[in-house]
Amino acid sequence: MMIGIKSIASYVPVAGVDNYAQGAKFGKDEEFILGKIGSTFLPRKDAGQETSDLCVEAANTLFANNPQLKRESIDVLIVVTQNGDEEGLPHTAAIVQDKLGLSTNVAAFDISLGCSGYVYGIYAIKGFMEAAGLKNGLLITADPYSKIVDPEDRNTTMLFGDAATATWMGEGAQWQLGKAKFGTDGSGAPHLKVSNGVFFMNGRQVFNFALLKVPAHLHELLGESDLTPDDIDAFCIHQGSAAIVDAVARRFEDKPEKFLKDMVETGNTVSSSIPLLIEKHVLGSSWKRVALSGFGVGLSWGSAIIYKD
Amino acid sequence: MMIGIKSIASYVPVAGVDNYAQGAKFGKDEEFILGKIGSTFLPRKDAGQETSDLCVEAANTLFANNPQLKRESIDVLIVVTQNGDEEGLPHTAAIVQDKLGLSTNVAAFDISLGCSGYVYGIYAIKGFMEAAGLKNGLLITADPYSKIVDPEDRNTTMLFGDAATATWMGEGAQWQLGKAKFGTDGSGAPHLKVSNGVFFMNGRQVFNFALLKVPAHLHELLGESDLTPDDIDAFCIHQGSAAIVDAVARRFEDKPEKFLKDMVETGNTVSSSIPLLIEKHVLGSSWKRVALSGFGVGLSWGSAIIYKD
Repeated sequence: MMIGIKSIASYVPVAGVDNYAQGAKFGKDEEFILGKIGSTFLPRKDAGQETSDLCVEAANTLFANNPQLKRESIDVLIVVTQNGDEEGLPHTAAIVQDKLGLSTNVAAFDISLGCSGYVYGIYAIKGFMEAAGLKNGLLITADPYSKIVDPEDRNTTMLFGDAATATWMGEGAQWQLGKAKFGTDGSGAPHLKVSNGVFFMNGRQVFNFALLKVPAHLHELLGESDLTPDDIDAFCIHQGSAAIVDAVARRFEDKPEKFLKDMVETGNTVSSSIPLLIEKHVLGSSWKRVALSGFGVGLSWGSAIIYKD
Repeated sequence: MMIGIKSIASYVPVAGVDNYAQGAKFGKDEEFILGKIGSTFLPRKDAGQETSDLCVEAANTLFANNPQLKRESIDVLIVVTQNGDEEGLPHTAAIVQDKLGLSTNVAAFDISLGCSGYVYGIYAIKGFMEAAGLKNGLLITADPYSKIVDPEDRNTTMLFGDAATATWMGEGAQWQLGKAKFGTDGSGAPHLKVSNGVFFMNGRQVFNFALLKVPAHLHELLGESDLTPDDIDAFCIHQGSAAIVDAVARRFEDKPEKFLKDMVETGNTVSSSIPLLIEKHVLGSSWKRVALSGFGVGLSWGSAIIYKD
């Protein structure tokens, strides 16, 4: 039995920032906010909420949605984050283990990745589970950029929203993982980084990187899988901004309307953007085969095909 | 073909601290330093060396030792660290990809774990490689605690040494991964953590945790593997201190002399302690079956059996 995606739940804070109002502060009109940024509202965690608390909210919804999944049956927990609770150590997954009341027999660790993190994460947890003989895994994404974004930085403050997702990975899943491809270019590390506690992004460099890399990477993945774009029902790519999703879709050429875009009420939620799309649009659909692509900090990118078994 | 351990190389800085002299400063005699701490010398990286530089040193030695391993054939790189180069993002593995001159087709990410990190890491990289169809992986450990240890804190400054290791994971390996067991107890997270940039350890709590957990965990692992202690040629457990290795070995009862202890010149090197033991004592040996156990920050623990194919 192979490990696949059984269920996804999410937590998106109700409180947040009116992005039209924020745009006005920086002289950006509503057309820019909706058309280029793509988000009229940016959810924000409470100051008192830690990253682990966002993880717990998403996981508790997952348990509520899946009463057959018992807490004591979870044997692995991975948190994808670069903005965890503590200063480096301990890892956030250990704190989440305790807050969720999971068994101490759980294997728990964090994976440090940004916007490519979910695509890496599903293969990392599937592989770890298969290598170690584990049955039920939680893959949690939670990277609240409100911790590091400077509200006065017009290059970043209109983009990011806080959110978390929890994916139940296990046997007998409807959605299985197909071929995947990954990439890393550390020479681009300075384009997205934190210095003295504040996030910096060279938006132009990151946009160009994504536009150069993602369509070509998806074409390579399809070619190596003996598939054509017609075989793919939908493309769930990282929702960096409306502009980047639109540009990648147009550059990909074949049916750009297949590229899902749904970030009006969430913003760029880093590693949570792809699982949010899958939760809302893929799991309940009649689609058979969906392509994923995440890209960002590192620079790092990953593309994969998931398919209905 | 299964993914196993093909080769290990390490980097231990030549410069460091005379631990007898340091002990004298805190009123500790040589018997305490050698017998309880276990290390007369604690290697320290240069102030100008980043965590990624330690990774690069270990990996370059691995490449030099294995001329058949080409840089361009590496398709996955995982760095186990909780003291990476940057403040959370980007991940250190991306920086190492660039400094090593690896292909941009490499999948790269960090795993956040402390002293249990190598045991988790070998299953994480093996699983990821098998799930994603990758052939040659580098698992690097580098957690230089000199970045966070207060030289005036007598509870920690006599314990930790800086080091890095690089493990080549691939097909046709002499050493394969057998059964593994993992555990996490986040309620113990406060016993080992960083606050305001400084490491804190409740040594008594951590000692008690290890003594309670590790022998029992090893017995469970052996039992579930239908093995007895007689079937194990050597035990490579995390070298937290001479006292903890001795205490675990005695508590385990059966032949405590099988528990390797080799930390006189290295100190507690966090996730590098177990691969340092395997490199020096296991890979060139005639042994057939070795048990590993790492334990520490999280709290987190992992035990595994590796065996010669």
